[in-house]
Amino acid sequence: MLRWLTAGESHGPELVAVLEGLPAGVPITRAGIQADLERRKLGYGRGARMKFEQDQLDFSGGVRHGLSMGSPIALRIGNTEWPKWVDVMSAEPVDPSRLAGARGAALTRPRPGHADLVGMQKYDFDEARPVLERASARETAARVALGAVARAFLGELGVTLVSHTLSIGPVRVPDQSPLPTPADVAALDADPLRCFDPVTSALMVAEVDDAHDTGDTLGGVVEVLAYGLPPGLGSYAQWDRKLDAQLAAALMGIQAIKGVEVGDGFATTKRRGSHAHDELVADEGLIARLSDKAGGIEGGMSTGTLLRVRAGMKPIATVPHALRTVDVATGEAAAAHHQRSDVCAVPAAGVVAEAMVALVLANAMLEKFGGDSVGETRRNLDAYLAAIPAS
Amino acid sequence: MLRWLTAGESHGPELVAVLEGLPAGVPITRAGIQADLERRKLGYGRGARMKFEQDQLDFSGGVRHGLSMGSPIALRIGNTEWPKWVDVMSAEPVDPSRLAGARGAALTRPRPGHADLVGMQKYDFDEARPVLERASARETAARVALGAVARAFLGELGVTLVSHTLSIGPVRVPDQSPLPTPADVAALDADPLRCFDPVTSALMVAEVDDAHDTGDTLGGVVEVLAYGLPPGLGSYAQWDRKLDAQLAAALMGIQAIKGVEVGDGFATTKRRGSHAHDELVADEGLIARLSDKAGGIEGGMSTGTLLRVRAGMKPIATVPHALRTVDVATGEAAAAHHQRSDVCAVPAAGVVAEAMVALVLANAMLEKFGGDSVGETRRNLDAYLAAIPAS
Amino acid sequence: MLRWLTAGESHGPELVAVLEGLPAGVPITRAGIQADLERRKLGYGRGARMKFEQDQLDFSGGVRHGLSMGSPIALRIGNTEWPKWVDVMSAEPVDPSRLAGARGAALTRPRPGHADLVGMQKYDFDEARPVLERASARETAARVALGAVARAFLGELGVTLVSHTLSIGPVRVPDQSPLPTPADVAALDADPLRCFDPVTSALMVAEVDDAHDTGDTLGGVVEVLAYGLPPGLGSYAQWDRKLDAQLAAALMGIQAIKGVEVGDGFATTKRRGSHAHDELVADEGLIARLSDKAGGIEGGMSTGTLLRVRAGMKPIATVPHALRTVDVATGEAAAAHHQRSDVCAVPAAGVVAEAMVALVLANAMLEKFGGDSVGETRRNLDAYLAAIPAS
Amino acid sequence: MLRWLTAGESHGPELVAVLEGLPAGVPITRAGIQADLERRKLGYGRGARMKFEQDQLDFSGGVRHGLSMGSPIALRIGNTEWPKWVDVMSAEPVDPSRLAGARGAALTRPRPGHADLVGMQKYDFDEARPVLERASARETAARVALGAVARAFLGELGVTLVSHTLSIGPVRVPDQSPLPTPADVAALDADPLRCFDPVTSALMVAEVDDAHDTGDTLGGVVEVLAYGLPPGLGSYAQWDRKLDAQLAAALMGIQAIKGVEVGDGFATTKRRGSHAHDELVADEGLIARLSDKAGGIEGGMSTGTLLRVRAGMKPIATVPHALRTVDVATGEAAAAHHQRSDVCAVPAAGVVAEAMVALVLANAMLEKFGGDSVGETRRNLDAYLAAIPAS
Repeated sequence: MLRWLTAGESHGPELVAVLEGLPAGVPITRAGIQADLERRKLGYGRGARMKFEQDQLDFSGGVRHGLSMGSPIALRIGNTEWPKWVDVMSAEPVDPSRLAGARGAALTRPRPGHADLVGMQKYDFDEARPVLERASARETAARVALGAVARAFLGELGVTLVSHTLSIGPVRVPDQSPLPTPADVAALDADPLRCFDPVTSALMVAEVDDAHDTGDTLGGVVEVLAYGLPPGLGSYAQWDRKLDAQLAAALMGIQAIKGVEVGDGFATTKRRGSHAHDELVADEGLIARLSDKAGGIEGGMSTGTLLRVRAGMKPIATVPHALRTVDVATGEAAAAHHQRSDVCAVPAAGVVAEAMVALVLANAMLEKFGGDSVGETRRNLDAYLAAIPAS
Repeated sequence: MLRWLTAGESHGPELVAVLEGLPAGVPITRAGIQADLERRKLGYGRGARMKFEQDQLDFSGGVRHGLSMGSPIALRIGNTEWPKWVDVMSAEPVDPSRLAGARGAALTRPRPGHADLVGMQKYDFDEARPVLERASARETAARVALGAVARAFLGELGVTLVSHTLSIGPVRVPDQSPLPTPADVAALDADPLRCFDPVTSALMVAEVDDAHDTGDTLGGVVEVLAYGLPPGLGSYAQWDRKLDAQLAAALMGIQAIKGVEVGDGFATTKRRGSHAHDELVADEGLIARLSDKAGGIEGGMSTGTLLRVRAGMKPIATVPHALRTVDVATGEAAAAHHQRSDVCAVPAAGVVAEAMVALVLANAMLEKFGGDSVGETRRNLDAYLAAIPAS
Repeated sequence: MLRWLTAGESHGPELVAVLEGLPAGVPITRAGIQADLERRKLGYGRGARMKFEQDQLDFSGGVRHGLSMGSPIALRIGNTEWPKWVDVMSAEPVDPSRLAGARGAALTRPRPGHADLVGMQKYDFDEARPVLERASARETAARVALGAVARAFLGELGVTLVSHTLSIGPVRVPDQSPLPTPADVAALDADPLRCFDPVTSALMVAEVDDAHDTGDTLGGVVEVLAYGLPPGLGSYAQWDRKLDAQLAAALMGIQAIKGVEVGDGFATTKRRGSHAHDELVADEGLIARLSDKAGGIEGGMSTGTLLRVRAGMKPIATVPHALRTVDVATGEAAAAHHQRSDVCAVPAAGVVAEAMVALVLANAMLEKFGGDSVGETRRNLDAYLAAIPAS
Repeated sequence: MLRWLTAGESHGPELVAVLEGLPAGVPITRAGIQADLERRKLGYGRGARMKFEQDQLDFSGGVRHGLSMGSPIALRIGNTEWPKWVDVMSAEPVDPSRLAGARGAALTRPRPGHADLVGMQKYDFDEARPVLERASARETAARVALGAVARAFLGELGVTLVSHTLSIGPVRVPDQSPLPTPADVAALDADPLRCFDPVTSALMVAEVDDAHDTGDTLGGVVEVLAYGLPPGLGSYAQWDRKLDAQLAAALMGIQAIKGVEVGDGFATTKRRGSHAHDELVADEGLIARLSDKAGGIEGGMSTGTLLRVRAGMKPIATVPHALRTVDVATGEAAAAHHQRSDVCAVPAAGVVAEAMVALVLANAMLEKFGGDSVGETRRNLDAYLAAIPAS
């Protein structure tokens, strides 16, 4: 079983990510993880922070000479802006005089759409700083780093993930558009919005420009595809072992996600049963499905066809035209703090979603096939596939 | 921390449900649970089984003289049809001659849209009987029973759940329709589709009739509301502690659910940021939100306003006009087994979703407030609420 | 991963046991489980209850035609004394007049050495009935039933468990006595104390007689052996994945256990390092250990040699010569309630310990080898063993 | 619920420790943790490494201005020897020529009593380096750091831990010796063996000297005491919720521990029931226990009296007079690698055991009392204590 925890604050010295339970022998390199960290910054509509923020990656443990060791993988992602925040975010007590600057001011105007107000209530804080530091989307860098590790493991098992942008605000890829394959990843990453349909991508660029010009922000929908999964990951035997339930949690647990779909999702709810399911046909001794409306999951298990899940992201809550709030120090109406200036983070959300899906699938692989070395897991997987005559 | 497991097969002697971790002193009665089990059978478009299937409830442990004891709650839901299945589902080996009838025949034609085929591959079965027995929606009766227990606990803490049907196939309640309150539950349960809008309900009835006449089935969308939650359940501190992530897993883990939304969900992805968030205003010394687009969750935590989540259900996969499949015993094309005849189970899905939400919220209450007796949990909750000046 | 929960009260209608995660295809019969339940009642020095208490076993789910189905195993162990307790332990409220008899009286004199007093404080009860009903050793019958299921699985993987009694009170099997093997189980079960050394067994009988005559009770030490384990179960990678840590929790979690040892345990702490470890030698191309002082666990992992763990049980706390206590209803000194009359339950504790060890080992097997059918797990295990050249 | 993971290798750049779930507002300082790290190096009989190994502590997250923030606590303990190991333990692939020195040689002679051989088999390594790097006792520094955090939390709740050495090899503190209290910690830490009895301490020093002179090593027994616990932590309701089960796992999960006792442990198994339990007496309106044989745990719950648990450590397995092994590269008999030269690490084991007990107790506090700020947890605890009339 995989377990993973992240730690670290947005303006602290570093993020830390620990992944427990990965088999030995998985090829892991700094370059591979760093590449995914860079992909997390992609996307038209990102603000200045993405540019000056460097993700400085270090291994603390679990990897030796390019291979996992079976021991926990621990990664650090240094914050190059840390020197500016040494006092404000110091772990040790600091003299109050050192907090006199703008960065050190108490954040008493909780921002709508953020964790600020509830976080203060829950944890008994009189300002939002400790809340927003951890609730920040910067934490997703740690998930992406772990996701890169999980993807390296999945790669050894023949599984490849692809993510792409389905919509930005109201602009959406047409239904029945072709799906990107692993061969298309470079092209996707090169697209301003990580959208596979060039026409739609151009419309999305225009939408982002318009939002930027009007001081507004945008959300959208991303989709993650997993190629090469075996049938039988997850289980119907208990509610929390369903692969779709686990994927739903992993995706909804990403900052700003408000909706999750498997396969055709909500569109399926409008179809009649005669047109909503993937019929089975004999195909040269095997059994094939005529469609993939279910998104590669039936009965809470992977079917062995293309896995397809979606996550819907709300528009960035830090809106340039500041939203109304209340200053908790005075009880007076106020304008919300404005901390950053991205217009749209949907393309990055696709990369984060990919990471979360990778972690869930890697765990499901281990649950079904066990193994303490990647060779052992692979051997067990191969023996299983060889034993399924019908697929 | 609450833990819950269900067990039992669709045509076995009984379902079993165990709930570990509930405080002592929660009022629990057979009538209360039985009432929820009856609600699970509600809805226009249910087939014959719902009528003859009786949910015979027994307590195995955990409740004494109408109160929980702190020990695990164990419930049994007897299957009144069991005498017909004694041989087919016998735990002990039976003489093959006793399996000669129709019920005993091997199910070698896996049904599209069901767990059948993948389940056979995963668990190495040569027929689908052991799969469909457990993957069946009948298992949700056990969840509803536990959900009733969780709701009793939540009731002692001032929280009430309401579920209703938002859509059946393409027929949907108009946007901005008023939401039902706890006072409306009886009326909802009396509505043929558990729909709060009478005009839409009538259209839904017509849709069900039409699907029935054409030998087809329907899906839809349900919504669960939780009134009376305190702010601060769940946490942003770690991805899997987010209340929305936990709710998403609980809902997606229900049979046939393919999509989950929190608050306005996917609709929010189309809005601009200036119109997508719940602004904060001072209100007689407290802080209030001007809207509830977020569905009562910000930063993975309950905000203290109305919680609102949705689940989208695909149409029933056992379609009267049988879908195409393959007989795994022969490799030949075949028509899928047809095991039941409901047209639509969406109203029941609302009741099941309510149960799952109740279990998640009860667990979140215990995580935040602790307590081994309901009085202790309530006392801790009250002290917390008294200490939040701003809400 | 295996998960297991038990439920039910000592004088309730039944105990319930649920085991989640067992692969399909494990041969499970009522007779096999019932045999272990009978073994739990063995032992010289047991009181009357063991004789009239019948463990009536029923399957609620998870087993069909003698094989596990991959779905949760649910078992019920009926209480044949239930008719006498219908009112006292009724789940539904009862008229107080029906509680007027001796059985219905409030238990306000908490028994030293039991959960009574602390349980009342923790759960806010004004009497001990709800506490002792669940804290009772009768609950171990549910564990033994699940342990029998786990043993059936282990048996398919070549692992066999044996338990025996090492000491009763001060009477102990001599050091360096030969260890029982699987071939000795019938003889062990036939011995009055489940002791493998006949001379010591006779002394133990005399000790029990003496304790009985003086109105006293006895504890002792049991040992569980596991034959046939592969190397590599458990892991040093994280503290809670150590097999010895998991075994220690499982054994210490049995009622009345106050000490746990792995291998030579505390005796090893007195040795010097040069004589405390199992040296390695080449043996016809394999590597063998010259001894098993470590009890078959090094670095938190099974070594592939004989696993050996011990549990020390305190004397039964319900002493015929009643211990001093306080009546919580009056605050006055009182004599403790006396609920049963066993002199010694150590032989039974060996059977319970066997069950707990079996559950831990079955889980460790699944963690390392995965598998959803017993054939798959076995195939993965065999391939692993074939790939270890040195052992 | 607390979750904690450690990561990092013995000769890697650093250890990492993450603790999830700690409430906000706990006072945490570098000095406090550093002090515990220094205590881990205490003890007569430690080798050279303890002297030159510096534990360089850094906070990665979770603490701001001296207080926990509710977000995960992440700590790093730098390895000052890292520059010597940069190539041998490099995460990135290195040119083989850089591994030509002694440090880089493959470790093909697995050491008896260590994880080496089984680890190689489990994880498919052809040498022991990756195994011993993680299985090393150095990892306990990370636990001690987290334990210091847990102790800071417990301190806010009125709980104080004390550990001391009961025995070194065959030299043991006399029975019925007085127990150290929190006031004695400084004296204990100043004692060469952390032994509270000066006469025994002198004998222990002689024992260590003798072992050193004969090229041998020693084990022993430590005891951890917890003062100030409330009654009712843990539960009898389910086997894995028993506090003693959790403590047993935590202690047995420490490197080299082979036995665990609660209270009088195995000594209790030799007593008769009339003398083995803690009788209850009225004491000015409260209920008191006349003794603490049970070690402060009854029915798997803290009783509110002194908690007392023990762990038995085997002698250090790296014996100067090298033990016999086999070179796996050649299959020939060999002498085991000799990596360090401590004679005895028992005093340090006491500090590690303290840390593990602290983590278990902190978790049990949160399970019972909840709370997201230390003030909230304290408030809930106080209200509970006020509501227990009898203790």
